[in-house]
Amino acid sequence: MPALTDEAPGIADAALHALLPGGKLLRPLLLVHSAAAVGGDTALVLPAAAGLESAHAGSLVHDDLIDHDDVRRSRAATHRRFGPATAIVTGNALYFTWFEALAACGRRGVPHQRIVEAMQIQARAGRQVCDGAAREVAMTGRWETPVDAYLEMARLKTAVLTAAACRIGAVLAGASPALVTALASYGEALGVAFQIRDDLLPYADDPVAAGKPAESDLRNLRPTLPVLQARDRASAAQRAALRDAFAALPRDDAYARVRELVQETGALTEADRLARSHATQALAHLHRLPAGDHRQRLEDLAHRALGPPLDA
Amino acid sequence: MPALTDEAPGIADAALHALLPGGKLLRPLLLVHSAAAVGGDTALVLPAAAGLESAHAGSLVHDDLIDHDDVRRSRAATHRRFGPATAIVTGNALYFTWFEALAACGRRGVPHQRIVEAMQIQARAGRQVCDGAAREVAMTGRWETPVDAYLEMARLKTAVLTAAACRIGAVLAGASPALVTALASYGEALGVAFQIRDDLLPYADDPVAAGKPAESDLRNLRPTLPVLQARDRASAAQRAALRDAFAALPRDDAYARVRELVQETGALTEADRLARSHATQALAHLHRLPAGDHRQRLEDLAHRALGPPLDA
Repeated sequence: MPALTDEAPGIADAALHALLPGGKLLRPLLLVHSAAAVGGDTALVLPAAAGLESAHAGSLVHDDLIDHDDVRRSRAATHRRFGPATAIVTGNALYFTWFEALAACGRRGVPHQRIVEAMQIQARAGRQVCDGAAREVAMTGRWETPVDAYLEMARLKTAVLTAAACRIGAVLAGASPALVTALASYGEALGVAFQIRDDLLPYADDPVAAGKPAESDLRNLRPTLPVLQARDRASAAQRAALRDAFAALPRDDAYARVRELVQETGALTEADRLARSHATQALAHLHRLPAGDHRQRLEDLAHRALGPPLDA
Repeated sequence: MPALTDEAPGIADAALHALLPGGKLLRPLLLVHSAAAVGGDTALVLPAAAGLESAHAGSLVHDDLIDHDDVRRSRAATHRRFGPATAIVTGNALYFTWFEALAACGRRGVPHQRIVEAMQIQARAGRQVCDGAAREVAMTGRWETPVDAYLEMARLKTAVLTAAACRIGAVLAGASPALVTALASYGEALGVAFQIRDDLLPYADDPVAAGKPAESDLRNLRPTLPVLQARDRASAAQRAALRDAFAALPRDDAYARVRELVQETGALTEADRLARSHATQALAHLHRLPAGDHRQRLEDLAHRALGPPLDA
């Protein structure tokens, strides 16, 4: 992100803190492999891929501030290091960098018509991510949230951006509408699958693998998928116990009780099944693409979202 | 902003609260008159003008949150009405709408190459506004801030967006590079002039004319131009008194003392002179444009920034 280094120290330092060291780079990889899988030149789309990671980092800066999460990627979240005001404007700057990076693809030779189409995808996806974040905030403490409303929030907050990654890569590479749609559908199903896996992390044997406190959602009184599924599967007694435990958060014994009940009701197995179903759908969308190394890399990502099943 | 109404109630309501009733619409007017002054069709650029107001509203939502300003346009600021988390994501959504609106200009027939150029202007301007906001935060309590550093911050935070308004209008209308530069220079000089006028509002006879508490900057320990100019013009005794009063903010008697000293040192007259100088420069840049109604409207705006001088 060289464009950020000519700024005042505050915002450049905060932006670099948010960007580096990087995460798994899932979204840039999706963009690049999508472009290449339809025959595009990866060198032409690399700026858009870097820009997408910038936008993702911007959303994490704001998420951490909103959720009072003090740790990200095993170090201080941006708002803890630079203060909330600088975190707000740094997140914004990282979003704007997404569009500056897209313009750089134009300078590398991507036709203007494709750049305009990609801009529209970025802008719409960005707005939908904000909508998802607002819905998540609105669900705080809402034990009665329907599973479908939760999944729609998760789609907006997470899957819209993985879908956009694939769609932008395909559009910049000049793919046919059918292949653009296939890749976008793959990216959306994959995003939902990964989000469900993310929701399952606090119930895993090693809950710190996420790089941020695994109990963040529960501490913020956010009813995630396993809790909502447990509620719907519970006996009357389990349901009352789960509701009481949810209401008693963030007390330590309440965490433990929620975890037990989510396990006892079979909600973990059901969430795992749902994640596998979305990952399987993601794989199916790839069948329309020509076979090759880049399709294979996209398939590998879907396989990662497939499992292992929790009971394996 | 019809695109916002299909969102969850939270973000749509908050976005509309931030947008309507509108303010002076300075930036959209600059964009439309700039396009028309170089012979452009205003119908083609109207979406970009509406998008720019959306971006401006987004920046105000975040500014008010950062500054703990509870009143905007004589009613509750967005974060007071909808909470800080929703205010953060609503500000972001309003920024993204800026780019969605630009895409709409493409659908109305503006050539893609111009849309891409405008996107780049928007993205760069947006990032610079964030940089300006970060610098302003970094100046909090910094009595020693040089006047030049303050003016550069004000340029980034305010004048970059008025310059972008004119530049985008000119680019979308297909103006020659010379006219694009003339209009952008006009917009920047005008923005600086208006920012200085804004800094002078707390010292006016009717300090509530701004629609937000006039003492916001002083309450946030922000050394605005009149204070910094007073510091540089003060006698040793005045300087010590001003420093002590600044350090004693936000005590009521400290406000009054700062106001007195800014007046006594002649800083108000000097700031007014600087605003007039920038407004005069703005007017000079317009001479390169063909005469006509739209150039006249741009000149009228510059005349408004000219003053009345404070001693009139």
